[in-house]
Amino acid sequence: MVNVALDAMGGDNAPGEIIKGAVDALNKSSEIKVYLCGNEEAMKECLETAGSYPHDRLELIPCTEMIEMSEPPVNAIRKKKDSSIVRGMQLVKDGTCDAFLSAGNSGAILVGGQTIVGRIKGVERAPLAPLIPTAKGASLLIDCGANVDARPTQLLQFAKMGSIYMENVVGVKNPKVGIVNIGAEEEKGNMLVKETFPLLKNCPDINFVGSVEARDIPNGDVDVIVCEAFVGNVILKFYEGTGKMLLSAIKETMMASFTTKIGALLIKGKLKETLKRFDASEYGGAPLLGLNGLVVKTHGSSKAKEVTTTLLQCVSFKEANINQKISSKINI
Amino acid sequence: MVNVALDAMGGDNAPGEIIKGAVDALNKSSEIKVYLCGNEEAMKECLETAGSYPHDRLELIPCTEMIEMSEPPVNAIRKKKDSSIVRGMQLVKDGTCDAFLSAGNSGAILVGGQTIVGRIKGVERAPLAPLIPTAKGASLLIDCGANVDARPTQLLQFAKMGSIYMENVVGVKNPKVGIVNIGAEEEKGNMLVKETFPLLKNCPDINFVGSVEARDIPNGDVDVIVCEAFVGNVILKFYEGTGKMLLSAIKETMMASFTTKIGALLIKGKLKETLKRFDASEYGGAPLLGLNGLVVKTHGSSKAKEVTTTLLQCVSFKEANINQKISSKINI
Repeated sequence: MVNVALDAMGGDNAPGEIIKGAVDALNKSSEIKVYLCGNEEAMKECLETAGSYPHDRLELIPCTEMIEMSEPPVNAIRKKKDSSIVRGMQLVKDGTCDAFLSAGNSGAILVGGQTIVGRIKGVERAPLAPLIPTAKGASLLIDCGANVDARPTQLLQFAKMGSIYMENVVGVKNPKVGIVNIGAEEEKGNMLVKETFPLLKNCPDINFVGSVEARDIPNGDVDVIVCEAFVGNVILKFYEGTGKMLLSAIKETMMASFTTKIGALLIKGKLKETLKRFDASEYGGAPLLGLNGLVVKTHGSSKAKEVTTTLLQCVSFKEANINQKISSKINI
Repeated sequence: MVNVALDAMGGDNAPGEIIKGAVDALNKSSEIKVYLCGNEEAMKECLETAGSYPHDRLELIPCTEMIEMSEPPVNAIRKKKDSSIVRGMQLVKDGTCDAFLSAGNSGAILVGGQTIVGRIKGVERAPLAPLIPTAKGASLLIDCGANVDARPTQLLQFAKMGSIYMENVVGVKNPKVGIVNIGAEEEKGNMLVKETFPLLKNCPDINFVGSVEARDIPNGDVDVIVCEAFVGNVILKFYEGTGKMLLSAIKETMMASFTTKIGALLIKGKLKETLKRFDASEYGGAPLLGLNGLVVKTHGSSKAKEVTTTLLQCVSFKEANINQKISSKINI
C-alpha cells in the first residue's frame, strides 16, 4: 500500500477538485491510501458529492489552519503548525505516509520539504523537477526550485537524481542528460557551467550528452535538462508565458473575421489535440527529489485529473524504490 | 552623413541579400554612406544585379579574408586582420565610420567590438541588446552577449544604456525597466539580483518598476528587461526555439486532413499578419551598446529587408547622440 498525504486546501480549485481527484485515484488503484489534510467541515462537504469510494482507504486529517498562496513561506511553515501543509509533511516525516502532495503555496512546499521532511543523507539540495512538454514528449527540467546559486557538486547530484526519476518513473531508458548552456562547445558558459561540465562528463552513472542550448530544449533532444534553479525557473515560467501569449494571439486571429471564424471551426478539433500535447498539466506534478519521502507540487490551477495522475505517480515512485536508488548513487 | 561599415560576407545569405539591403537603404535615405567590406569580386558581381544606387555613397573595402560562422572568435579576430569583420571595425575605430553592421559570427562581433572598437570610458561591459517581440510591441533584452557572470554595477549600467536606447532610438517615452527575477518580491532572487535591486531602485536616471518574472516577459509590460548575459541568452534562444516548435506543431495540425487544410486556407492571410508581429527580424539588429561607435549584429538568417532596417537604425542612433548620452549618464 502507498500512503499519500494530500493537501485538500491548496490551489485555486481546492478543496473540490482536489478531493474529486483523490476519489478518482482511489477508485483507479487499490494500491493507494489517501490521508486528506484540511478543514474538516469543508472536506466532509466535498466528499458527500464526490461519489463512492473505498472508505477504508481515505482518512481525514482535520487541520485548523491553512497557508495562503501568497504567504511568505518560511514564516508560514514555522508558525502554522496545524496547517494542511505542515501536518501532511509531518505524516511523511513520522513514516505514516510515503508521499505528500499539494497544489498550494510553492515556497511553503519547498521550505517544508527541506525542513520538515528532510533530505536523504548525502543529498546537498532537493531540486524541484517538473516535466516540460516538448516536440517529442516531455523532458525533466531540474532544478526549478527556490534554492538558487547552486554549486557544481549539487548540479551533479541533480543529474543523477533526474536520471533515476526519468528512467524509473517516466520510463525513459538510459535518459540523455544535458546541461543548459549558451553554446555547444565545452569551453562556453558561465563559471558554474564550466566547473560542472567535467563532473558530468566523468560521471559513470549518467548518459551525459553535453551542453544543450535553450533553443534546442523544445525539441526534446535531451531527457534530463540540468540547470541552476534561477535559470530553470526562468525557463519554466517563460515557457508558460510564451505559450499563453502565442495562444491568445492565435485565438484572436481566428476570431478576426467571418472567414477566419469558419476556418477556425474546421481546425478546432485537431488543434485541441495538438495543444493538449503541450499542456503541462497532462504530465502531473513536479517532484521535489532527494527527500526522505516524496513531496510533489502540482500546478496551482490543478483540476481533479492532474491530482489523480499525480497520486498514481506516487505509486510508481514508491514501487520503483527511487529513494533507495538515489541514496546508493549519491553516497558512493 | 552617417558612415556605416557593412560586412558583406557575414550571414547565411551573404553577400547577395546583404548588398541588396545596402542598395535599398542607400535609395531610401540620403543620410547614409555604406563602406562595403568583403571579397572584391563577389561584391562587384552582386552589385551588377542589385539595381541602381548612388555610387558616391557606396565604397568598396576589399578584404582577402573571411571569418566563418563557426570559427572560434578570439583567435579569428586576432589572426584574420584582413577579414571583413576586423577591417570594418577598424573603420569605426579610426573614425572613418560611425557604425559597423554584420550578420556574421556573433562571437567574433562581440569580441571585436570590445577589443577593436573599444568601450566608452567608464563603461565596464558592452551588452548585446536585441529587441524581442511581445504582445504589446517589443522589449529590449539586455544583456544577451557573451560576457557572463556580470556584477551588480554592470547591470546598473545596462539599465541606463538600455533606457537611453529605448527612449531615443525606439521612441518609447520614459521606458519601464525591470530586472528578471524568480518572484516579484524584493527579497527574492539570486545573489546578483538581490545586490542589483537596490542599485536600480535608487537610480534617478531610470524608470525602475521592480522585478519581472519570466512568465510576464511576453506580455511586454516592461520595456527594458535587465539580466545577466547567461540568463538573457537563455531567454532569447528559448523564445526562438519555442516559437519555432509551436509554429511547426500548428502547421502540422493544419495539414492533418482535408478539412483542416480548407480551414487553414481561410485563416492563412490573417495568421501571416499575426506571425509577422512575432518575427524578430522585423525589429532589425541587436546593438552592442557602450562602445566608441555603434556595432550591430543582425540575425544570421538576415535578408535584405533586415539589413535595410538596421542600416536606417544606425542613422537614428547617430542622430540621437546615443553615445554622448551614455557617456554622460555613466560618468556621473
